[in-house]
Amino acid sequence: MSNLFVRTLRENPADAEVASHQLLVRAGYIRRAAPGIYSWLPLGIKVLRKVEDIVRAEMDRSGAQEVHFPALLPREPYEASKRWTEYGPNLFRLKDRRENDYLLAPTHEEMFTLLVKDMYSSYKDLPTLLYQIQTKYRDEARPRAGLIRGREFIMKDAYSFDVTDAGLDVAYQNMRDTYQRIFDRLGLDYVICSAMSGAMGGSKSEEFLHPTAIGEDTFVRSPGGYAANAEAVTTPPAEDLDFSNVPAKEVHDTPDATTITALVDLANESYPKDTPWEAADTLKNVVLALSHPDGEREIIVVGVPGDREVDLKRIEASVSPAEVEVAGPEDLKKHPELVAGYIGPDVIGPNSPSRTTDEDGNTSGSVRYLLDPRIARGSAWITGANEVDKHQFNVVYGRDFEADGTIEAVEIREGDPAPDGSGPLELARGIEIGHIFQLGRKYAEALDLKVLDENGKAQVVTMGSYGIGVTRVLASIAEKNHDDLGLVWPINLAPAHVHVLATGKGEDIFGKAEELASQLSDAGFEVVYDDRPKVSAGVKFKDYELLGIPYGLVIGRGLADGKVEIRNRATGESTEVSVDEAVAQLREILKEDLAKHGE
Amino acid sequence: MSNLFVRTLRENPADAEVASHQLLVRAGYIRRAAPGIYSWLPLGIKVLRKVEDIVRAEMDRSGAQEVHFPALLPREPYEASKRWTEYGPNLFRLKDRRENDYLLAPTHEEMFTLLVKDMYSSYKDLPTLLYQIQTKYRDEARPRAGLIRGREFIMKDAYSFDVTDAGLDVAYQNMRDTYQRIFDRLGLDYVICSAMSGAMGGSKSEEFLHPTAIGEDTFVRSPGGYAANAEAVTTPPAEDLDFSNVPAKEVHDTPDATTITALVDLANESYPKDTPWEAADTLKNVVLALSHPDGEREIIVVGVPGDREVDLKRIEASVSPAEVEVAGPEDLKKHPELVAGYIGPDVIGPNSPSRTTDEDGNTSGSVRYLLDPRIARGSAWITGANEVDKHQFNVVYGRDFEADGTIEAVEIREGDPAPDGSGPLELARGIEIGHIFQLGRKYAEALDLKVLDENGKAQVVTMGSYGIGVTRVLASIAEKNHDDLGLVWPINLAPAHVHVLATGKGEDIFGKAEELASQLSDAGFEVVYDDRPKVSAGVKFKDYELLGIPYGLVIGRGLADGKVEIRNRATGESTEVSVDEAVAQLREILKEDLAKHGE
Repeated sequence: MSNLFVRTLRENPADAEVASHQLLVRAGYIRRAAPGIYSWLPLGIKVLRKVEDIVRAEMDRSGAQEVHFPALLPREPYEASKRWTEYGPNLFRLKDRRENDYLLAPTHEEMFTLLVKDMYSSYKDLPTLLYQIQTKYRDEARPRAGLIRGREFIMKDAYSFDVTDAGLDVAYQNMRDTYQRIFDRLGLDYVICSAMSGAMGGSKSEEFLHPTAIGEDTFVRSPGGYAANAEAVTTPPAEDLDFSNVPAKEVHDTPDATTITALVDLANESYPKDTPWEAADTLKNVVLALSHPDGEREIIVVGVPGDREVDLKRIEASVSPAEVEVAGPEDLKKHPELVAGYIGPDVIGPNSPSRTTDEDGNTSGSVRYLLDPRIARGSAWITGANEVDKHQFNVVYGRDFEADGTIEAVEIREGDPAPDGSGPLELARGIEIGHIFQLGRKYAEALDLKVLDENGKAQVVTMGSYGIGVTRVLASIAEKNHDDLGLVWPINLAPAHVHVLATGKGEDIFGKAEELASQLSDAGFEVVYDDRPKVSAGVKFKDYELLGIPYGLVIGRGLADGKVEIRNRATGESTEVSVDEAVAQLREILKEDLAKHGE
Repeated sequence: MSNLFVRTLRENPADAEVASHQLLVRAGYIRRAAPGIYSWLPLGIKVLRKVEDIVRAEMDRSGAQEVHFPALLPREPYEASKRWTEYGPNLFRLKDRRENDYLLAPTHEEMFTLLVKDMYSSYKDLPTLLYQIQTKYRDEARPRAGLIRGREFIMKDAYSFDVTDAGLDVAYQNMRDTYQRIFDRLGLDYVICSAMSGAMGGSKSEEFLHPTAIGEDTFVRSPGGYAANAEAVTTPPAEDLDFSNVPAKEVHDTPDATTITALVDLANESYPKDTPWEAADTLKNVVLALSHPDGEREIIVVGVPGDREVDLKRIEASVSPAEVEVAGPEDLKKHPELVAGYIGPDVIGPNSPSRTTDEDGNTSGSVRYLLDPRIARGSAWITGANEVDKHQFNVVYGRDFEADGTIEAVEIREGDPAPDGSGPLELARGIEIGHIFQLGRKYAEALDLKVLDENGKAQVVTMGSYGIGVTRVLASIAEKNHDDLGLVWPINLAPAHVHVLATGKGEDIFGKAEELASQLSDAGFEVVYDDRPKVSAGVKFKDYELLGIPYGLVIGRGLADGKVEIRNRATGESTEVSVDEAVAQLREILKEDLAKHGE
């Protein structure tokens, strides 16, 4: 510790909100170099390498072969796949001295595809499975939580190449099994969530989510085994309702009804019906701004039941690669027909009298109007009357207005039914630590990767994509393995196996501590030895707890009686043992713990 | 080989001029992704990792601690050190989505300095020695020779931090010893060359050059042990000459004397003196253009003896960070006083009547005029008369003209005296595989890295910088270890230890080959097994030779007689051995070879 390049901090860094971020900085594992960009210190490097080694070992075991692509890449392949544009502002772009366009790769689908095209030409060459552990770049709008969402980060990305769909299924299952082994060895529990709505077709896409309250992703589970990212949950289209008994729509004054609650209260007071009005009877029209990758900013209106909040992430999943946000005052200024708080269907989408349609079916003159699938044809609503302090009642979808289509727009709620009928959904948060995805032929088609089949006919190759966020995984492990005092590494990932502490002032204490540290080191264990002469026992214990090495060996006052102390960082247990037996006992403990972790 | 992601090429790639580049591509170790940017295939990754492991092991052994910095960095630290500007077009610069300036780091002096500043504050924390093995970026004007001069490449860079100059000397020597151990283990011979001219002061700077005809660097050696990069060779200033007997200068007609040879011939014919005129009697004034990092283009004139060529690399070493090239027609147009081919000192430098000097001593009105140190004060010359077809004779430096200073401007020649008097110089070419350099306090001052000394006084830290081009080293190893047939790896760096070839058609041959391959693999050796069923023996041998795995085990027709063949790739030797003893014999050979390489 007197030489180790580490300094611990007692205070949390100002920009760190989650425990893993706070502790990895405080314990001297990482340092921030720029927003979402981190430097690794010696202790951090050691853990990172152990995580990488487990990922690499299991990828090798799966039959995947390791390659390594540059991070700095020319524009052309990404132009061919359209990602140069579709990645929008998330892509770091630059020019070289000859004014050629380059990018820092966010992932390498294009390069893997081109490499296989360069090397292989026959169905006999396939299947093949390639991977790399490599630094990636994404210019995230909001880097957060330290390593969990960074702008420079390490990823293991793998790609499978097959001639047939059945081959892709085999590769996909192989990677699915491999990921389970990897996360098991890393001690990270996970839920395998469907990551793609059924609407988008048959290709499989699953995310490995590590459940944790600090996760960015919301996912759902049902008692019947359904699990999906909230963005991927589909709402069965509502069945048509009979509206023959619904009276004609009428406009009412609704002064000061600027919230759904106020509107419902006012409706019940001033315009009561047989059963009370509820928020679910109101149709909320929300104005959103889509930022398309080509720079276009499109205003749309989304109609949702008033008892549900709009979920921008779910909407974004539908409109990707466009980004979405709630429209601002500037947007509304350009659309005087949209009266904030009182928007009704009459002025938007196909209902707008100013809409025109050209020969190709392209519309203009009014913003697009999309409805949440919960809005049934024939259902009747209270909604805005496009005038301040006025709403209209008994407005029926299919009778009084139409829409341009549907969109998954609202939050999923605890208790909502699973789309596959497997019961009510439970909600939880998680970190996406892995993603497996049947890409199919998209990239192979864009980059013309074909092989000759048995009959000499060129076939487009089908691909799978398999990613693990290595640095994010490390942060997730730190997040899971910590307590109020600091980090608590599992032994197979810790920067060292034993933390030897000399707590006292006598030369005999330091001499014995050094001797025991050497013995452990000679026995093949990784040791951090706190040899700092003028540092108090209190500070040494605090550092031991903060660093999170799984076992402590304390040589202090007890040495006079021939005793030292073995500490278990995870349980906090402390056992006094004879100094002569300490190394032997610790060896047994370490061996057992390592064996338990498959080492 | 039927699954290994490799395809060998019989033809050299069009852009590859040196053997290592040709062979690494042809044997399927690397592929070009963009100019100076390469992808690594499975065999290449294996060798790269072995090289890295040796570098890492020796760095660890030296007491250095490993860290890892981002490649994508904010502008500010590089602005503080002035390198944001001084690196000129060699720096890849980019902006993030918030329009902040970033760069791809060419080296990390600034970040190491800031990290130590962040972590340490007392002299007791020092010395410390940190390193990383990391991807670097330089937008080279002329990437060449594959991995030897790339734009994305892997470097091991290390930095030492000391309070005292004596401490820096110790760290420097430690790294010098470590580099010798590293290159010895890598089997790369080297010459340690002085890399800095004495004129620049006392700090040490040495390059490890691997001698090879394809090297970009010219270096010199003397019998007395002097060794230096040609750019660093200093010319002792010439002693003043007595010019009292030199007649006054006079202008002569020199029609068509547009070359030094023509001028000398004409002088001997038309204006003979007691001894013949020689090229060394002519003063050649060469117009150069300096591109300063801030974009300024400065025209200067350099005066050199007519019998020597200007060496732009030596000049660039003096004017760095400016880049230098011979001035073009556009440059000359702006300086009508410079009559191409007939430039004399009278119109340049301090001799120009149009030169003015302001209060601060800054001059203007004429280009700077610098002389090679071989031009002695008092020496007499034939030189241009600033008029077409006219030269002036008996022009004496110090009598007839002055200069703005000296510059090391001309080529070093075989037989030139070593500056330290250790004998005549021999010239050779080499690749710079390592560089150790006493940075001193430059970066610590720029970034305010200070520690408190014993008396509580803040002291600026002194630093050393120590680099090894890891990917360039790999290419140098390939360059050194090849023959006409392909690569010939030393066993400690080869992608595998044994290449097992099944050459024949019988099932027994493939069965036995697989069995022997498994036995070798089980014994802990790395094996490539060529199991391709429909590939001819000839192709398999060619691939074995191209890949360069040090030992071959051939199972072919001889198997019927119980014989197989052990091949040594380096010597070409082939030994027939009994199939039952093959594995045992090969194990002995491999163990011996590995032991010889310290494994």
